[in-house]
Amino acid sequence: MSEFSWIETYFRPLAQAHPESLQLQDDAALLECPANTQLVITTDMLHEGVHFLAGTTPHLIAQKALRCNLSDLAAMGAVAFGYTLALGLPRHTDAAWLADFTAGLAADQQTFGCGLLGGDTTATLGPLSIAITAYGHIPHGKAHRRTGAQIGDDIYVSGPIGDAYIGLRMAKGELPADNAMIARYELPMPRLELGVRLQGLATACLDISDGLLQDMEHICTASSCAAALDASHIPLSPTAHQLMGAGHIHLPELLAGGDDYELLFTASPMSRLALDKIPGLTRIGTIRQGSGLTLYDAHGDILPINSKGYQHFK
Amino acid sequence: MSEFSWIETYFRPLAQAHPESLQLQDDAALLECPANTQLVITTDMLHEGVHFLAGTTPHLIAQKALRCNLSDLAAMGAVAFGYTLALGLPRHTDAAWLADFTAGLAADQQTFGCGLLGGDTTATLGPLSIAITAYGHIPHGKAHRRTGAQIGDDIYVSGPIGDAYIGLRMAKGELPADNAMIARYELPMPRLELGVRLQGLATACLDISDGLLQDMEHICTASSCAAALDASHIPLSPTAHQLMGAGHIHLPELLAGGDDYELLFTASPMSRLALDKIPGLTRIGTIRQGSGLTLYDAHGDILPINSKGYQHFK
Repeated sequence: MSEFSWIETYFRPLAQAHPESLQLQDDAALLECPANTQLVITTDMLHEGVHFLAGTTPHLIAQKALRCNLSDLAAMGAVAFGYTLALGLPRHTDAAWLADFTAGLAADQQTFGCGLLGGDTTATLGPLSIAITAYGHIPHGKAHRRTGAQIGDDIYVSGPIGDAYIGLRMAKGELPADNAMIARYELPMPRLELGVRLQGLATACLDISDGLLQDMEHICTASSCAAALDASHIPLSPTAHQLMGAGHIHLPELLAGGDDYELLFTASPMSRLALDKIPGLTRIGTIRQGSGLTLYDAHGDILPINSKGYQHFK
Repeated sequence: MSEFSWIETYFRPLAQAHPESLQLQDDAALLECPANTQLVITTDMLHEGVHFLAGTTPHLIAQKALRCNLSDLAAMGAVAFGYTLALGLPRHTDAAWLADFTAGLAADQQTFGCGLLGGDTTATLGPLSIAITAYGHIPHGKAHRRTGAQIGDDIYVSGPIGDAYIGLRMAKGELPADNAMIARYELPMPRLELGVRLQGLATACLDISDGLLQDMEHICTASSCAAALDASHIPLSPTAHQLMGAGHIHLPELLAGGDDYELLFTASPMSRLALDKIPGLTRIGTIRQGSGLTLYDAHGDILPINSKGYQHFK
C-alpha cells in the first residue's frame, strides 16, 4: 500500500466533516477565524520508548498524542476544533496498525469535538514518532497565561496528583497493576470544559505535564512570584494513599511525577464563591511575594524538595 | 543543560520579535486573524536518513525543514508569517548542535519574514526528527487549490526540474560533486513571492516534492482531468543537460525525482500575457479531458513512463 492510498483509506475519513481540511487534497488547510476571537495553537511530540511504552496499542497512542495537545488548549481556556498530524512510521508499519491508530483518533474526535485538518505521513528509520499541532478558539483577550498570578491569589488543582506516575510504575511492572490507574497514565483526560469555565476566573493556568512542583515553578517564574503549597491539601487518589501507607511510594515522587494533565491555576480569593461551584477543584496553596516554591506539611513545617519533575535532557 | 535552559538560550530569541509566541512562556501561541483573510496551515516532518543524509549540518537541516513547509504555503499563494517546531533530538545532542540549528532558523526567519511561534523539544531514542507546522495569510477565497485545473489550461513550472535529484546523487557520491547542485537538494528555495503573484492567475497549483510526473498526476486526480506534457519543453539546468549528454542520468529519473520545490501550476491561456511578464516560468503542457498523464517527445510521439516519483512506503 502506498502513502497515498493510506491517506485515502485511513486519514481522509477523519477530515471529511471538516471543510478546513480541504479533504486533505491540498498542500495546506484553510481556516476562517470568527470575528473577535483569537486562534490558540499548541504542539506536542511523542516518541515510542520515551512518551509511551513499546507495546502500547496504536489506539491508545493516538489518543494520548491528541489529548496531550488538547490539554494545552484546556490550560489556555480555548475551545478545541481541530488538529494537524505529522507521523513518523517505522518501515514495518502495516494497515492493521494504521486502522487501529486512526480508530483511536476517530473516537477522540467524537469525544472532544475536533477534526483532522491536515498532516504528513512519513517513514522513519527510528521508532514511531508523532507530532500533533492542535487548534482552538478563544474570545479575544480571554486566554489564560502563565504570567497572570498575583500576590495573595489562591492556587488550585483540578484533580488528584500523581496517578499517572503510579500508572506508569504499574505499566512497567514495578507496582501491582490496577487498570484504572494505568489508564490515568495511558489515557489522560484534557480538562477542556473546565478550561472554558475558568475564563475570567483563573489569573494564571497551565496543565500539569512535568509534575506539580515543576509546573508550579513555571507559573512562579512567569508571574515573578513565589508559591506556598500545603502538602496535606494536595488531592491524592485512594490508591495513592494506599500505596503510600504501605510504603511503596512516597509523596515527593507523586508531586514530581509528570503526565497528570490536571489544570493547575491561580485565582483571586474573591473568586472563591464562583470556584466552589465547580466540582473537582481543590485549593492547595497561596501565591506570595518573592520567588520559588515552598512546600509545607500539616504542622506548617517546610518539607524538603528534591527532584522537581521530569526533564527530557539531564 | 536542561530542556528549559535550551529553550531560553536557543529558541526564545527566535520568538522574541513575534508577540503571537507569548515569548514561548505559555502552553500555546495566540494568533489574530486580519479581517477578510484565511489562515493557511501546513505541516511537514523530516527524519535523518530519510529526508536528509546523516552528516548534513544542523544549519542546513533546520533550513530545509522550514523551507519544505514554506514551499507548501507558496503553492497555496499565501504570505508566510510563522511556524511551530516539534523537535525529536537524539540523546547525544549538545549545545553546539542546537546553536547551529537555531542559527539556520534565524537566518531563514530573516530571509522569509516569519517567526517561531511555539514548539516542543523532546528526546527520542531514534534518529533526529523534525516536524514543522507553518502559518500564512491569504485574502479570503484566493488560495490556490489542486482542484481548479480546467480543460484547455496551460501547464507551467517555475524552474528547472531534477536538479535536487542530481544534487542528492552527488551528495551520495554517485555523481561528481557540484556544490551548486547539492545546494539545490539541501537548501530548496520556496517560491513564496511567485505564489503571491499567481493569485488570480493560477487555476491549480502545488509545489513539486514527489517528482514532476507524480505531482502532475495529483493535480489531474484532484481536478478530474488529464495532462499532456511536452518533454522537450520541460526546463533543465545546464548541468542536467551535460549529465544527460554524457549518459550519466536519463530524463525519466529527473522527472520522477523529488524535492524540486518548484511550483507546478495551471492557468487559462487568457493569462499568458500576464504570466509572460513573470521571469522564470516555462509552459510545459496542456490540460485535457480524461484522466492521467501523457508525456510527448519533440516529434509528438508518446514517451513511456515508468516510476512516477518518490513514495515513502512501497
